[in-house]
Amino acid sequence: MIKAKIVGAGGYGGVGITELLLRHPETEIGCLVSLSDTGRKMSEVFPHLRGFCDEVIVSPDDPKTKEAYDVVFFSTPDGVGMQAAGEELERGARVIDYSGDFRFNTLEQYAEYAEFIGLDPVHKSPALLTETVYGLPELHEIGGSQMLVGNPGCFAVSCIMGLAPAVAAGIIDVKSIICDCKTGVSGAGKKPSAAFHYPNRYDNMNAYKLTGHQHVVEVEQELSALAADDVQITFTAQVVPVCRGIMSSLYATLDGQTAGEVLEIYRDFNKNNPFIRIQDAQTPASIADVRGTNYCNLTVDVDARNNRLRVISHIDNLMKGQAGNALQNMNLMFGLDSGTGLAIPGQYP
Amino acid sequence: MIKAKIVGAGGYGGVGITELLLRHPETEIGCLVSLSDTGRKMSEVFPHLRGFCDEVIVSPDDPKTKEAYDVVFFSTPDGVGMQAAGEELERGARVIDYSGDFRFNTLEQYAEYAEFIGLDPVHKSPALLTETVYGLPELHEIGGSQMLVGNPGCFAVSCIMGLAPAVAAGIIDVKSIICDCKTGVSGAGKKPSAAFHYPNRYDNMNAYKLTGHQHVVEVEQELSALAADDVQITFTAQVVPVCRGIMSSLYATLDGQTAGEVLEIYRDFNKNNPFIRIQDAQTPASIADVRGTNYCNLTVDVDARNNRLRVISHIDNLMKGQAGNALQNMNLMFGLDSGTGLAIPGQYP
Amino acid sequence: MIKAKIVGAGGYGGVGITELLLRHPETEIGCLVSLSDTGRKMSEVFPHLRGFCDEVIVSPDDPKTKEAYDVVFFSTPDGVGMQAAGEELERGARVIDYSGDFRFNTLEQYAEYAEFIGLDPVHKSPALLTETVYGLPELHEIGGSQMLVGNPGCFAVSCIMGLAPAVAAGIIDVKSIICDCKTGVSGAGKKPSAAFHYPNRYDNMNAYKLTGHQHVVEVEQELSALAADDVQITFTAQVVPVCRGIMSSLYATLDGQTAGEVLEIYRDFNKNNPFIRIQDAQTPASIADVRGTNYCNLTVDVDARNNRLRVISHIDNLMKGQAGNALQNMNLMFGLDSGTGLAIPGQYP
Amino acid sequence: MIKAKIVGAGGYGGVGITELLLRHPETEIGCLVSLSDTGRKMSEVFPHLRGFCDEVIVSPDDPKTKEAYDVVFFSTPDGVGMQAAGEELERGARVIDYSGDFRFNTLEQYAEYAEFIGLDPVHKSPALLTETVYGLPELHEIGGSQMLVGNPGCFAVSCIMGLAPAVAAGIIDVKSIICDCKTGVSGAGKKPSAAFHYPNRYDNMNAYKLTGHQHVVEVEQELSALAADDVQITFTAQVVPVCRGIMSSLYATLDGQTAGEVLEIYRDFNKNNPFIRIQDAQTPASIADVRGTNYCNLTVDVDARNNRLRVISHIDNLMKGQAGNALQNMNLMFGLDSGTGLAIPGQYP
Repeated sequence: MIKAKIVGAGGYGGVGITELLLRHPETEIGCLVSLSDTGRKMSEVFPHLRGFCDEVIVSPDDPKTKEAYDVVFFSTPDGVGMQAAGEELERGARVIDYSGDFRFNTLEQYAEYAEFIGLDPVHKSPALLTETVYGLPELHEIGGSQMLVGNPGCFAVSCIMGLAPAVAAGIIDVKSIICDCKTGVSGAGKKPSAAFHYPNRYDNMNAYKLTGHQHVVEVEQELSALAADDVQITFTAQVVPVCRGIMSSLYATLDGQTAGEVLEIYRDFNKNNPFIRIQDAQTPASIADVRGTNYCNLTVDVDARNNRLRVISHIDNLMKGQAGNALQNMNLMFGLDSGTGLAIPGQYP
Repeated sequence: MIKAKIVGAGGYGGVGITELLLRHPETEIGCLVSLSDTGRKMSEVFPHLRGFCDEVIVSPDDPKTKEAYDVVFFSTPDGVGMQAAGEELERGARVIDYSGDFRFNTLEQYAEYAEFIGLDPVHKSPALLTETVYGLPELHEIGGSQMLVGNPGCFAVSCIMGLAPAVAAGIIDVKSIICDCKTGVSGAGKKPSAAFHYPNRYDNMNAYKLTGHQHVVEVEQELSALAADDVQITFTAQVVPVCRGIMSSLYATLDGQTAGEVLEIYRDFNKNNPFIRIQDAQTPASIADVRGTNYCNLTVDVDARNNRLRVISHIDNLMKGQAGNALQNMNLMFGLDSGTGLAIPGQYP
Repeated sequence: MIKAKIVGAGGYGGVGITELLLRHPETEIGCLVSLSDTGRKMSEVFPHLRGFCDEVIVSPDDPKTKEAYDVVFFSTPDGVGMQAAGEELERGARVIDYSGDFRFNTLEQYAEYAEFIGLDPVHKSPALLTETVYGLPELHEIGGSQMLVGNPGCFAVSCIMGLAPAVAAGIIDVKSIICDCKTGVSGAGKKPSAAFHYPNRYDNMNAYKLTGHQHVVEVEQELSALAADDVQITFTAQVVPVCRGIMSSLYATLDGQTAGEVLEIYRDFNKNNPFIRIQDAQTPASIADVRGTNYCNLTVDVDARNNRLRVISHIDNLMKGQAGNALQNMNLMFGLDSGTGLAIPGQYP
Repeated sequence: MIKAKIVGAGGYGGVGITELLLRHPETEIGCLVSLSDTGRKMSEVFPHLRGFCDEVIVSPDDPKTKEAYDVVFFSTPDGVGMQAAGEELERGARVIDYSGDFRFNTLEQYAEYAEFIGLDPVHKSPALLTETVYGLPELHEIGGSQMLVGNPGCFAVSCIMGLAPAVAAGIIDVKSIICDCKTGVSGAGKKPSAAFHYPNRYDNMNAYKLTGHQHVVEVEQELSALAADDVQITFTAQVVPVCRGIMSSLYATLDGQTAGEVLEIYRDFNKNNPFIRIQDAQTPASIADVRGTNYCNLTVDVDARNNRLRVISHIDNLMKGQAGNALQNMNLMFGLDSGTGLAIPGQYP
């Protein structure tokens, strides 16, 4: 059995990986760590887990956190993982970090990202940057020798998966990309705030961070690598009154391809990606199709009048956008099938 | 493997049991039957099942429906199961019916129910009434010899489970019971109607069927049997803007018991019921604790000033109130543990 | 023109009375006071008011707050109004307070209420208690000589209006009353909290404060006065995912009356109450019928099988349950028609 | 008093103009016509209007419909107004039609539109096309001599108002325009359907009509006229779980202008448009700011890195997108101030 420690267990990212590990056939949860809910049972914080996970949450100082685990999930804000990952790796654990700490391979890329969100641009564990990988297994090979993974941002997953085939095939003008993204509220996490207070949020929607969203950096990094060219996107973050789900509408100028040709390119690119489902513009789609699952559904369309690619990318931000993708990475890091404990449909309605 | 046929696969009850059977270790889905979606793949009707259930839905006339199955679920309106169950039983199948057709053991009880909802009071398969059982395994022993089960109504499950311990213990005045029930919208099924059109339903709530709700008949039948007395309840059905979930507030005049005494009675009554979770009035509870699961959470409270029992009963109307309870029955009919493929926590948030 | 000051302008109660005064033909807003949003324009805090109320919010220390106003609304927590009302009255202003500070006429009643919610039971302005009136104009005459009014609690309005006619007529057993109340989230105010964080609240419902809700005290006070007997109710507060609206289901044992007789009693009681609308159990009703309005719609029903009265009471908690009722009081205190600027239908859908 | 007739009174567009006319100081409602709710009081169909509009709805054959009215609103599907408007105009009424029937001035333009949505391309009242005007008073002068107006489509209002200043100023590449539009559910009207059944719609979002939306024709017509060039847009319609509101994110390649320069152009263009409010990208905005009102709030932004204009356009689809804009037109047609009975803030929360 793979023994797991979850740091940040009290948040949405922590409970998400907990739920997934509880139904994973090869894993057991060894330690739950959180600053905020120390001393309470996981099932007191999340009552739906009563009888399933009655483990007590411990503080980061607890001796139990120093024991040996096979995998450690850091479901923590930027800056936490980079200080603690080294110690975990030394103890032999594999590490999957949800934040931006390990999404970049050079000091320069990290500094650009960090400055973007107002953090100290000096990485605390520079030596680890060469060992980490951007944790999108559809783009990067993640295998048994991988000890450290930077799990990608939720918006970034939806945009990169929706644009990668076109960028890789060289069929779009990489200066013309627009990402119009709508997220559910859970993407903002568990901490209450005025913007997500029910009376302010129900029956409402808005754009935010128009002056810049941190996920842009990783989208441009990944697409630029695929394009072997500098990709610069226009990105709009918007929030709508749903709990789970991101729907990103992605636009770019095409080089004359038809919808059929583009569909073929997308299907071919993803032929070995079990969690990516491609469909044409005539097939109905909605985020309900992926709610609670690790799938990314892509509607691939061409506006032929304007020679423009339009892709509608659908994910569950807490699954393929977070905990689900993290488990997919864990499976690959341990040599398991990527869908182990994860190839599950959601519940409807 | 248990081979299953689902009649009424295109509705919420049908997709619910489909989802459950897909993750059940001992079952395979042999046949999906529906009047409305004939010829379409199940995954076209419910796109979240793409890759999981791409079986084509057949009409009730299709030869495939006449093959031998081990279990048949009738997720159909009143009147369908009673005409078809006999034939299924003759072919050796076990039958679980979601409607009121097999919830009663006598012609008189059925007639009372049928007249209540404006149906022909004459049962079409009177011989089967003595063979069926009211499918609440917490109240009735359902074992390997049971071939036919009438799965209970969703409101009824929430009320009966919330009142049974008190009624059985003889601690409440059975003429004083009030059931104030709030249901999510999925309880009304998949067919669109003005009352459940999004703009009419969001930010809204209302009571309905004040002049009488059909589930009253089975609540009174079950509680009267426990009380060995005539129980008559006041029942109020209300609908609120949630999708899944019933919360029933149940009131009755006590015989002087304290909250501690009543809690003890409820815990004792349910000591062998794995899907019933009892809690006191100080412990937070909400329907999110049971969403997507087969659990019934009961908050047991006493208003000592007024010598009154108050129980808040929480279920997912599509799970313990429908498909989940049906699978629990199936497990017991096949000698499996009642929680096989069913003892799963939900997803949060 | 009536010149108004609003204390607590930055909350839901403050913006509610602001909106109403903006369309009131006889009033102008003279001063907006708040602790939290000092120095910001009202229309920065509430952008829908841009161009309608660009007045700057001042702190309670601002000299502007000491000027003479004709009416002062205290949309503030318990304890604020009782310390400041005296000064306002001395300056000649009429005072309407939203909290429990002036809902009681004796020190004993106030102490009971205060202890209930953990406040100091000693009232800070005992002399004013004899001058105030419980601000439900359907029960108490509020006229030109009234200088001080304690605006009622939202749950209390729904329960009292739903039960008063039956209690006054002596047709129910006053020991048998059960109030099962469901509120929208705006009743909890503007301050974010975990319970009302969108991902926790959407698709969810729960009972709360089962061990006691402060509104019980005023419901029992008002009904006891009508009954000339001690009324003791069982009260359940529940919250559902709507923004505005309270639906209270009220039950009590009848003395044999028919639905027709009870309807007659309710219609007669309210014949001069323009904001109370009575309907029978066959007429559809929902909180959408009163959303955004000052109306209280009562569905009056009898469960004849059990000789039980059932009333479903519908209000908008921020209107008849708060700012709307406050304006109704203001109108009467200034000799205006009670519906001035207030007899307005809502918007649908 | 202006005497009004409303055809299609039973739908959302009909009740919207009814609510507005009820609070308009110069108007009275003379006749309510509908096919579906004939013989019922308006307040039975829309219970919030009880006591405000208890007028009986009549069928189109009722003699009352032939009387003289000063203004007739056709809140009807395409094809109805074009057959009945002539008769109304002959009787001296002014006509405002909500459909596409009178949004075009030439047979060719109408035919293009009609073919787009599968209607007969032959207009039934060709003579009237030269007399009508596209009813966006911010772009077209609508004065006392105007007898016939084609009220614009809701998506079209949001896109045209968001792009017109830039197009008119010649600062964007008119071949680069992308309109990414999100609408609330009320835009689909009152008729229940699977897509808007509450359990299918809550917590969900999707793009639709990817292969073409009829509002594109009028957006391109109006913008082409302003540009004196052929404008061709990429348009994406999306629906999110809100009731009222459209938020359109509009993109186009700029000619090097800064955000400050563009803001100036937008403010100047709208200096005489009381219902258009301009704000910069630093000022928070959401559709709650315009809910229930006739305002269009435009957030004007420049992505300088990519030399791209980004405008977020916010309207209430049932107000500035429908009934509110219709009343604005009526006011102008009768020589009233455009804001008469309409310059009202919404309610919050």
